[in-house]
Amino acid sequence: MFNHILETTAWWPTSQYVYKERVVLTWKACEIGDTVDQIQTPSLVLDLQAFERNLDRLMQQAKGIRVRPHAKSHKCPEIARRQIEKGAVGICCQKLSEAAVFAAAGIDNILLTNQVVGAGKLQKLAELAQTVELGVLVDDIAQVQALAQAMVEQVKKLSVYIEVDVGGNRCGVAPQQVARLAQAIKAAPSLVFAGLHCYHGPAQHYRQDAERSEAIEGAAQLVKLAVAALQDCGIEVPCVTGAGTGTFWWERDSGIYTEIQPGSYALMDRDYADNAAGLKDVRFDHALLIQTTVMSVSHDDFVVVDAGLKSMSVDSGMPVVYGREDLTYLRASDEHGIVRVDGQERPTLGQTLQLIPGHCDPTMNLYDDLIVIKDGVVVDIWPIAARGASL
Amino acid sequence: MFNHILETTAWWPTSQYVYKERVVLTWKACEIGDTVDQIQTPSLVLDLQAFERNLDRLMQQAKGIRVRPHAKSHKCPEIARRQIEKGAVGICCQKLSEAAVFAAAGIDNILLTNQVVGAGKLQKLAELAQTVELGVLVDDIAQVQALAQAMVEQVKKLSVYIEVDVGGNRCGVAPQQVARLAQAIKAAPSLVFAGLHCYHGPAQHYRQDAERSEAIEGAAQLVKLAVAALQDCGIEVPCVTGAGTGTFWWERDSGIYTEIQPGSYALMDRDYADNAAGLKDVRFDHALLIQTTVMSVSHDDFVVVDAGLKSMSVDSGMPVVYGREDLTYLRASDEHGIVRVDGQERPTLGQTLQLIPGHCDPTMNLYDDLIVIKDGVVVDIWPIAARGASL
Repeated sequence: MFNHILETTAWWPTSQYVYKERVVLTWKACEIGDTVDQIQTPSLVLDLQAFERNLDRLMQQAKGIRVRPHAKSHKCPEIARRQIEKGAVGICCQKLSEAAVFAAAGIDNILLTNQVVGAGKLQKLAELAQTVELGVLVDDIAQVQALAQAMVEQVKKLSVYIEVDVGGNRCGVAPQQVARLAQAIKAAPSLVFAGLHCYHGPAQHYRQDAERSEAIEGAAQLVKLAVAALQDCGIEVPCVTGAGTGTFWWERDSGIYTEIQPGSYALMDRDYADNAAGLKDVRFDHALLIQTTVMSVSHDDFVVVDAGLKSMSVDSGMPVVYGREDLTYLRASDEHGIVRVDGQERPTLGQTLQLIPGHCDPTMNLYDDLIVIKDGVVVDIWPIAARGASL
Repeated sequence: MFNHILETTAWWPTSQYVYKERVVLTWKACEIGDTVDQIQTPSLVLDLQAFERNLDRLMQQAKGIRVRPHAKSHKCPEIARRQIEKGAVGICCQKLSEAAVFAAAGIDNILLTNQVVGAGKLQKLAELAQTVELGVLVDDIAQVQALAQAMVEQVKKLSVYIEVDVGGNRCGVAPQQVARLAQAIKAAPSLVFAGLHCYHGPAQHYRQDAERSEAIEGAAQLVKLAVAALQDCGIEVPCVTGAGTGTFWWERDSGIYTEIQPGSYALMDRDYADNAAGLKDVRFDHALLIQTTVMSVSHDDFVVVDAGLKSMSVDSGMPVVYGREDLTYLRASDEHGIVRVDGQERPTLGQTLQLIPGHCDPTMNLYDDLIVIKDGVVVDIWPIAARGASL
């Protein structure tokens, strides 16, 4: 990826018949110092003050448990740096190439919360483990063997976590199967058994806090079974890691988890805000917004904005218009959004609006730049350096 | 966008604390000459033979009507070049920055099938119109005035099309309103009235051919009203453009459209294939596939693949597994897909599968490179140069 880059200095490069070269425009959506209304749209903006409140709130509410935020949500090294500055021990990544980008940007403690499959990737994983603190997951004995093989000639060992299926019903093994995997990891000279990865994905989005509480109670019971099974074999568990923005207070208080991995808390999308607040629930502010412009007002009952499917992911439903309950984003086509107008205050042609995306992770993955605003002014532009890093 | 690029020569750049610089990995998913199974995943692949069949089939079925394929589907200059080589008069784009990328790559005849709003963008539009044949849409008198203003100091005139709402219920005006807009365009010395843009988006996805036929018959009636209204004012209509992959044979035979704009035909996604075939219906082959790897087999009834929401858009539903009716892609999370296994032929860990994406346009927009395969071997890699060009 990223090969054949042909950089140009003007916003408008001259015609060169370069179909197979990558054309890079230097056209920027804004400059530092612009007001938010001057940003060309659609663009992705970060409300710096809301973002910083979210970082602080998480660290307060972690109440001393180790925090390793998930960087798959943001793919932005500057955000990772700030999370670590606030006290996070490192980050999680979901893809090897994503981890490579963060490592290249200077993040030196990364847990790859995923299986890595294939000889080519395992070779790169083994190399990456020599330069940063790196962990990876397994849920199959064949993967342990493949990892051991890939690491044979390396000096520094690789931390390996066993993924336990604690209710997510995706990857991971049952508690009864962890002992055999842990023994295989411990038998490989180049691998270190680093702990258990116990993430309950669906529970993050259960709307009622009681459902989330029950799911994580169930998860914790399974983790305890796995830990007991390992102790029966004389194997101690150095770390139990998991949890997300929708449940982390339950894992924190479970007595068995030792590390939490929330990601979306820093940005906070519409879907997480749709969770009904519970007693212990920790709420975050919407820091991630899509700046959009009204581009057509030819119909009476709706206006059309310039942000559609290529400007946000709608897998978790439509965005909402920030601060405008009288406007409803009804449906998205590739480059258009239909916004119904219910009140008298009809948006005008060229007016800008802000959208709260339904799901922040795949939305961040659409943009190269995150435009940072404070008090209505662009104060910085952060590269979303791992955008598209899916290998 | 695309600023702060820090290129490196190794796949693995050394740690440099460069949070605010863009890190560019040179890690490639494959090399030319690799077999398809050697491609690291998830990756986007193009079956070259299916693609070429699609291009030929469209030109045959155009039956002489002017073809201007929509490049918003592919965002890839090499595909546009091949479409023009087969006889297309040029391309459509949906965004100004997208058009700028195609123009920079050497495509010199572009219809921007959208409204462009805001002084900054209009200035760039006016400049672009000096170097390529450029058309743009309006559906508001204020836009005509803004375009005229932006073009004041330019030498070459800008082609302006009026968007008519022919049933799409998005942008566009009613037939009764076109005369006033056309007169305003003709009154501006720097603008040329180039025709009517009459695209019925929802009709493309009506499942029954009779519904599509009826929708386009209705659209053609509205176009005829608009043309008659203009003729009453002594204004001839140089071009009526519209149509997509799901309906173009109806516009072609309408007696009023003079140009068709199909885009998805070249790639062909699952959603278009779900349309029930009709009598005149022109069918295309699936040329666009997502190469994916089985990364977890820890559950009995499903396997997990490495392509999820960041590897394809699910706005039009889930992908299907190419050539494997015994496998059902059930649900996607950010980087995982759950594939149910119904038969006895269970995919193994590390096995590769191919997915037909639900919707090709926003899926292309996720990748930097299109890996071109022929007879199971990588024969080329084409930059998706306009990926992310949403301004």
